Amino acid sequence: MNQTIETILNHRSIRQFTEEEIDPRILEQILKAACNGSTTGNMQLYSIIVTKDKERMKEMAPYHFNQPIATNAPLILTFCADFNRFNKFCLYREANTHAYNNMESYHWAVIDAVIAAQNACVAAESLGLGLCWLGTITYHVDKFIDILKLPKNTIPVACIALGYPAHVPPLTDKLPLEAFVHQEYYHDYNKEDIDRLYKEKEENPNTLKLYEENGINNLAKIFTEKRYSQKDNEHFAQILVSSIKEQGFL
Amino acid sequence: MNQTIETILNHRSIRQFTEEEIDPRILEQILKAACNGSTTGNMQLYSIIVTKDKERMKEMAPYHFNQPIATNAPLILTFCADFNRFNKFCLYREANTHAYNNMESYHWAVIDAVIAAQNACVAAESLGLGLCWLGTITYHVDKFIDILKLPKNTIPVACIALGYPAHVPPLTDKLPLEAFVHQEYYHDYNKEDIDRLYKEKEENPNTLKLYEENGINNLAKIFTEKRYSQKDNEHFAQILVSSIKEQGFL
Repeated sequence: MNQTIETILNHRSIRQFTEEEIDPRILEQILKAACNGSTTGNMQLYSIIVTKDKERMKEMAPYHFNQPIATNAPLILTFCADFNRFNKFCLYREANTHAYNNMESYHWAVIDAVIAAQNACVAAESLGLGLCWLGTITYHVDKFIDILKLPKNTIPVACIALGYPAHVPPLTDKLPLEAFVHQEYYHDYNKEDIDRLYKEKEENPNTLKLYEENGINNLAKIFTEKRYSQKDNEHFAQILVSSIKEQGFL
Repeated sequence: MNQTIETILNHRSIRQFTEEEIDPRILEQILKAACNGSTTGNMQLYSIIVTKDKERMKEMAPYHFNQPIATNAPLILTFCADFNRFNKFCLYREANTHAYNNMESYHWAVIDAVIAAQNACVAAESLGLGLCWLGTITYHVDKFIDILKLPKNTIPVACIALGYPAHVPPLTDKLPLEAFVHQEYYHDYNKEDIDRLYKEKEENPNTLKLYEENGINNLAKIFTEKRYSQKDNEHFAQILVSSIKEQGFL
């Protein structure tokens, strides 16, 4: 197994960092890696906001649900789907500035931003850093737009807290490869498939701990009733759709 | 520079492959790497369709605009945003199966799928393979859903043609890092910024060739008038939005 595959297979979310700062030359390597992925038509439809200022972290913290790493990490990188730069390029070259005000273009920019973010993650981990994705960036999109002063045609998509690991937890349980991979076309799952594929996960020590903490002996219900409920998801979906509209993509 | 960073910085799209097949053990390493990225709440909201059958490649080719690699590649991986598996898990565990029928959940699954796809790309390149993203997967989403027999709550998002490089082109021109990175908050671009950031790109030999081929001496207009026109983008946006609806997310 080569170093890259080893780095990727060794990935886990790091939620506790040491005080060690990230050397600017290390950060530059990570950012260069981020910016070298494939992008739609080589338009490079993303931007990266580097947050080091603790005051700004504190301002964003409530919308990251006050997770400790949202303020304790030495660095936060927020990856935005960005058609603003390209539209400005069109503006100053007297080309059509309305070609990309639609959901298709938004979708490309989301994809470009996530490719950049994942490249940054793999690069950072190969350099001994640890990280955690803050999925909360997708919830209060409107608030992050305000705080990070994002212009029209940009949407925050991915957020990575970055630092040197103070605590390295065990690898997370994952479904077996069989659960994800379909030969030639999609083979849908029946009850036996679901039972088989989720068996290990449902009996895993982490899950048993979740059963205890949540007082429900049912992992699916912990998700639908506690962690990601229909009501919450629909609420955040409304914010997301309004922000996509507000930012000029819908 | 370590091997991983080197692999990432050495990335370029490969559009010509040798006849060499991909060993199943190599493919397994790539798929395992794909499936080890961060995902929303560890729900792992993606599926990967492996296409080796030339007949199926030919069926999809028109919707990949008959790019030669869409049929010449030994392997195509299509990454789908997938809430079907998790919803089936909820169904067979008697949990709410409507919690994730919304744009917020769709957005998570798109992000999960792209993380998996980019992990696969970096892993493949570290093993000496070459690849090209087929962005066309985002155009006729409806057709790919039919051909790959994708059930409700799944959407194809990323498509990678994979093989051993027969021709390695030079690195693509990229904007300077300064174009993407914003300290603390977004600093919008004025005309001087755009002139400076795009100067090298606009004068690059590849771009001069594009000017000649398109008969326009304006890179922005080549994008807005030829490559990705407003009319085309709005057409594909309609297909995308209908498919998101049809697949149960809107």
